[in-house]
Amino acid sequence: MAELVRAAVQTGPRRIEIREFPRPVTGPDDGLLRIEACGICGSDVEQYKGHLGRNAFPLTLGHEPLGIIEEVGERAAARWGVQAGDRVALEILIPCRSCDLCLAGRYMSCPNRQGSYGYSPVSRAPSLYGGFADYVYLHPNAIVHKVSGDIPADVAVMFNPLGAGVRWAAHLGGTQLGDTVLVLGPGQRGLCAVIAARAAGAGTIIVTGLGRDRAKLELARELGADHTIDVEAEDTVARVEEITGGRLADVVLELTPMADQPVRDALRAVRHGGRVVLAGLKGGRPVELNTDMIINKAITVVGAYGVDSRAYGEAIRIIEAGQVPLHRLHTHSFELADLARAIETLAGEVPGEDAVHVAIRPEAPA
Amino acid sequence: MAELVRAAVQTGPRRIEIREFPRPVTGPDDGLLRIEACGICGSDVEQYKGHLGRNAFPLTLGHEPLGIIEEVGERAAARWGVQAGDRVALEILIPCRSCDLCLAGRYMSCPNRQGSYGYSPVSRAPSLYGGFADYVYLHPNAIVHKVSGDIPADVAVMFNPLGAGVRWAAHLGGTQLGDTVLVLGPGQRGLCAVIAARAAGAGTIIVTGLGRDRAKLELARELGADHTIDVEAEDTVARVEEITGGRLADVVLELTPMADQPVRDALRAVRHGGRVVLAGLKGGRPVELNTDMIINKAITVVGAYGVDSRAYGEAIRIIEAGQVPLHRLHTHSFELADLARAIETLAGEVPGEDAVHVAIRPEAPA
Amino acid sequence: MAELVRAAVQTGPRRIEIREFPRPVTGPDDGLLRIEACGICGSDVEQYKGHLGRNAFPLTLGHEPLGIIEEVGERAAARWGVQAGDRVALEILIPCRSCDLCLAGRYMSCPNRQGSYGYSPVSRAPSLYGGFADYVYLHPNAIVHKVSGDIPADVAVMFNPLGAGVRWAAHLGGTQLGDTVLVLGPGQRGLCAVIAARAAGAGTIIVTGLGRDRAKLELARELGADHTIDVEAEDTVARVEEITGGRLADVVLELTPMADQPVRDALRAVRHGGRVVLAGLKGGRPVELNTDMIINKAITVVGAYGVDSRAYGEAIRIIEAGQVPLHRLHTHSFELADLARAIETLAGEVPGEDAVHVAIRPEAPA
Amino acid sequence: MAELVRAAVQTGPRRIEIREFPRPVTGPDDGLLRIEACGICGSDVEQYKGHLGRNAFPLTLGHEPLGIIEEVGERAAARWGVQAGDRVALEILIPCRSCDLCLAGRYMSCPNRQGSYGYSPVSRAPSLYGGFADYVYLHPNAIVHKVSGDIPADVAVMFNPLGAGVRWAAHLGGTQLGDTVLVLGPGQRGLCAVIAARAAGAGTIIVTGLGRDRAKLELARELGADHTIDVEAEDTVARVEEITGGRLADVVLELTPMADQPVRDALRAVRHGGRVVLAGLKGGRPVELNTDMIINKAITVVGAYGVDSRAYGEAIRIIEAGQVPLHRLHTHSFELADLARAIETLAGEVPGEDAVHVAIRPEAPA
Repeated sequence: MAELVRAAVQTGPRRIEIREFPRPVTGPDDGLLRIEACGICGSDVEQYKGHLGRNAFPLTLGHEPLGIIEEVGERAAARWGVQAGDRVALEILIPCRSCDLCLAGRYMSCPNRQGSYGYSPVSRAPSLYGGFADYVYLHPNAIVHKVSGDIPADVAVMFNPLGAGVRWAAHLGGTQLGDTVLVLGPGQRGLCAVIAARAAGAGTIIVTGLGRDRAKLELARELGADHTIDVEAEDTVARVEEITGGRLADVVLELTPMADQPVRDALRAVRHGGRVVLAGLKGGRPVELNTDMIINKAITVVGAYGVDSRAYGEAIRIIEAGQVPLHRLHTHSFELADLARAIETLAGEVPGEDAVHVAIRPEAPA
Repeated sequence: MAELVRAAVQTGPRRIEIREFPRPVTGPDDGLLRIEACGICGSDVEQYKGHLGRNAFPLTLGHEPLGIIEEVGERAAARWGVQAGDRVALEILIPCRSCDLCLAGRYMSCPNRQGSYGYSPVSRAPSLYGGFADYVYLHPNAIVHKVSGDIPADVAVMFNPLGAGVRWAAHLGGTQLGDTVLVLGPGQRGLCAVIAARAAGAGTIIVTGLGRDRAKLELARELGADHTIDVEAEDTVARVEEITGGRLADVVLELTPMADQPVRDALRAVRHGGRVVLAGLKGGRPVELNTDMIINKAITVVGAYGVDSRAYGEAIRIIEAGQVPLHRLHTHSFELADLARAIETLAGEVPGEDAVHVAIRPEAPA
Repeated sequence: MAELVRAAVQTGPRRIEIREFPRPVTGPDDGLLRIEACGICGSDVEQYKGHLGRNAFPLTLGHEPLGIIEEVGERAAARWGVQAGDRVALEILIPCRSCDLCLAGRYMSCPNRQGSYGYSPVSRAPSLYGGFADYVYLHPNAIVHKVSGDIPADVAVMFNPLGAGVRWAAHLGGTQLGDTVLVLGPGQRGLCAVIAARAAGAGTIIVTGLGRDRAKLELARELGADHTIDVEAEDTVARVEEITGGRLADVVLELTPMADQPVRDALRAVRHGGRVVLAGLKGGRPVELNTDMIINKAITVVGAYGVDSRAYGEAIRIIEAGQVPLHRLHTHSFELADLARAIETLAGEVPGEDAVHVAIRPEAPA
Repeated sequence: MAELVRAAVQTGPRRIEIREFPRPVTGPDDGLLRIEACGICGSDVEQYKGHLGRNAFPLTLGHEPLGIIEEVGERAAARWGVQAGDRVALEILIPCRSCDLCLAGRYMSCPNRQGSYGYSPVSRAPSLYGGFADYVYLHPNAIVHKVSGDIPADVAVMFNPLGAGVRWAAHLGGTQLGDTVLVLGPGQRGLCAVIAARAAGAGTIIVTGLGRDRAKLELARELGADHTIDVEAEDTVARVEEITGGRLADVVLELTPMADQPVRDALRAVRHGGRVVLAGLKGGRPVELNTDMIINKAITVVGAYGVDSRAYGEAIRIIEAGQVPLHRLHTHSFELADLARAIETLAGEVPGEDAVHVAIRPEAPA
């Protein structure tokens, strides 16, 4: 058992190094998680590039950790219903579990957070709050979900993007039996939204992408999309009108990062009385929107903030049921030391690599 | 009984004339309504000025009619549950009553409308589709609500703006017991939203207005608002933070016509997870919005399209209960011949007149 | 074209005769439907036996009609969006389309009904209100749904029981992604509820039946049920506990006719905070229920009254999509003249016949 | 500061004694509450009589405590947002704050409870889990709500029954603007439901009681009920039909203990599509119900299990707003030593006393 623990630390834009930290001493209320895999998120790409200015360097990275419980205190074990050796998925947020919002089941909005996994300053003891590491510290208020050990780690770790897909398509989008669901953006979360929409009974699923997303759009169809649209070659709204016989989409999920036009397309492509879920961040830039259209079409627009326990739980159930070819989303695994290259691969900066889902596997053969 | 019926006709921007049309012959399925009063809406002002380009001249005006049933066919009487001599409020829309949306209770979105009251071309037989007239034709698919004859007509005719207030504050806003409700805009509908929010159990009600709205803001307080904000003298969001101890508003109703900033204020003044109802049209101009804020604050934005039968019914119940000083909203009544001046009064174009609710009374003593 | 139209008439308990009625003359608002198939419902069995005392003889029978529009008036065609030659499914109820409930989308509760299909007295002109006939009269207020002509009539006519399954499992039961759904009773509607629950994303589906229902329980598994329970050999609640690891069912559908114990089982087998949908009528007899259990388990019990347009529409979409082996439910077709035997077959009174779905085909080769 | 703390202990049916326990030593995660007042609940009456068999003697009683924080650990103070000297209301349940249900805001159903206030065995350290005492121990997982010190303790302690009224009338009953709400049973919780229904915008409120409840029914009218029914002199359902013009009640709250007929009346008095909230326990005895009526009237029946943080918070807001004459409900205060007589007074066993709300005030002048 090592006395030092490796963890990736970002010290500036595009500057990542592997540091070693003392292994924490745990007590009755906390624990330690040995990382099997930690997925890379689109926001990791933005953070790597230095676009998320709010986080001060140096910080630890990685907010989609899956691992094996190495140590767990007696009270923590009772609280979480786990024991050493169990595989668990770890949620990002560490809420207070006491305020009005936590008591009401809206812990994602907790104003008294005790921290979070990923983007944590190295100075916050015991430093191990990032999933790109050998171990992660399990804070007393951490939220964990048991996951069957039978699932390959590269697939099990998709609890995170699939949790987002479930929340956006099913819970926030409110997809009903037979609905037409339009997914703008074919990234890993868009593809997971296709899986969730299909599971929730959508009648017709349409996914959009750019010309370079051809492989992702093919994968979307394989996962259950009925139609795909290359927005560089076709007009999104016109195609949706054509596909739906003029009825337009019941639910639109806007998942594209940094792009304005898809937000406007969402309002145009949704039916009278339909729902638009916004999840694609635009870096704080304002978007020009025709708000009269929201009024005249009686549209409901829902901001997709975070993923909750219910959605993660449902994602894990779908993963464990094993009926969806989730492994088809996983394209790349890297060792911990290769984190920078891994992020660049997801970012599409590595020529010849067409990444969808990328994970760090710290235990990968050295 | 006159053979000719007077009705106001708009022939161009700021051009209104009173014309006479043959009194329609009714059959078993339709009827005729003798107008007691017809309210003037903010959109009548825009139409008068020629800002609503979509409607072709000449057309009849008036979409808030209240009257006495003069004639009603046998089948229509059974269908509507009324008889000649009953006082009724008339809804704007004339839906098909057969399509999926009508069957699902969403008749306001009916794609097969049989017309509507107000803004109807004179050429549409029998021409009498406007409430600024001696009589209105009751189409077989019209929707009517009985109203007690004991209420003064100037108050009873407020079923229309109060129906909007009920729908926006209670139904679309979902105001819950104890909620803080922020109403942006103190017009007749904003004031009616105060009444509805108070009735629905709001804990704190805040209303904004311009410097020139001082009398309306005082009226808002009289009707139940706890706080008012002069947006020319104070920062709306800072004041809402102060009033709520930083919790912000649970529900925000954006009711200002043509203004951009209130939409942005709505997003800033609503709490994490709160609801924003948009009802203030902007003439089709795009508004610059920070959509990231919708995401990061988990906001739900709802477009307020039209008013439905349930909201009108509830408004009539409040009017008949007689516990709210609705008469305080009514500031001006005019004869039919004075429609242009009536509209200009509501528009604030008549020096010295501070109008809130203005109605046409065609039967007023000549 | 015949001047006389055949229709089945019930004159007393277990007494059915085929009578001939003059073919109705239709006008601009109504129409005539040539019956392709009309399904037999469990309530037809009870009516045949004379157990539904409220309906006075003689009456016409058949409330699940599917057919081809033979005649349709100009206004009716516009209203329904159909033309002669179209295949449509016909809803049971003929609502007023004007009252508060109709306007609110709750036309099934309309207090001013204009009649209904099935169980209509012969004396009600033009007598042809029953689906077991050559033609059915299309009342101006009838509700029709277009159905693709490509589907075999025996399958297309299942729009009715599948509509019930959709409403019970998805709309009233509120089945969410991953839910455990327990269906008590494996009749045609129970099997259709399995299809709907599967489509709506249920995680685990359990169906109960009697020993003699073995074939139906096998069919349930073929249609997507994960587990079946023979209630004569096993304890329902104990098995549900075992299957769910003690979590019990999220949603329970109680569909058994005339039996008390399943209602009590429903309350015991549902989880804390779960939903129970009641659809199995008990002939008006009281059932002994532990209402404290409803309180202590925070159960919501929903009465399943009727099927609405949205559920029928969704059922037709599933039928047209063609991905569910609905034809496996259909076991028997009979000529019009054999209606009594058809009903007795569904009732299980014909030795050797194990019926699930039975339909009358009036056009069947004579 | 006393080293010993008094607390009421029940040792058997109708046997209560005051015992002294060592004052607990608190740490960083817990605290101690000095009791100002603790309300007596109807279930305390049943427990006193020995009707709630599940709780083993000896046990501490009192689950509606209001008090001043005497000691609070550093972490507990941060978690609860309080400091010594603050007045707080204490919830009954001590949930795990970690399981799926706690995370989803349904902590009342938590399967891993850490105990509860009231009905706790004396053997559970530090014994002080009952509100009828000088002090109550604040467990690390306790849930507290700050209450203004300006409110008289006898009124502030009504946070508990008023929380129930809010949950039943507003949250579970879903009372909408204008609804007719029927409250069966005029006890303190029935009266609080009147207050909550009125606050939530009910249009018409009807309360039932027995002949001996005349004073309570008068109080109901004073608190906002429009009509009251003496069920021994009038037929409940007939009166509701008369009052509503045949429309019946939108929401019915069944709050009577041990009585069967009100449950049946609830089903008969609710409108088609209405809601019935069950909160009156029947001692586990089955009730004969016409479940066909639930189906044919499309009724939703909701079991009212417990009260949640949101409802308590709203009750405290109403109390602090001070616009409802809550003090009119409070009829009796007793010293700790007189607990048995206090319970008998609420039970109606003390001739000449007509109790509605009864509280223990341990600090009352000795």
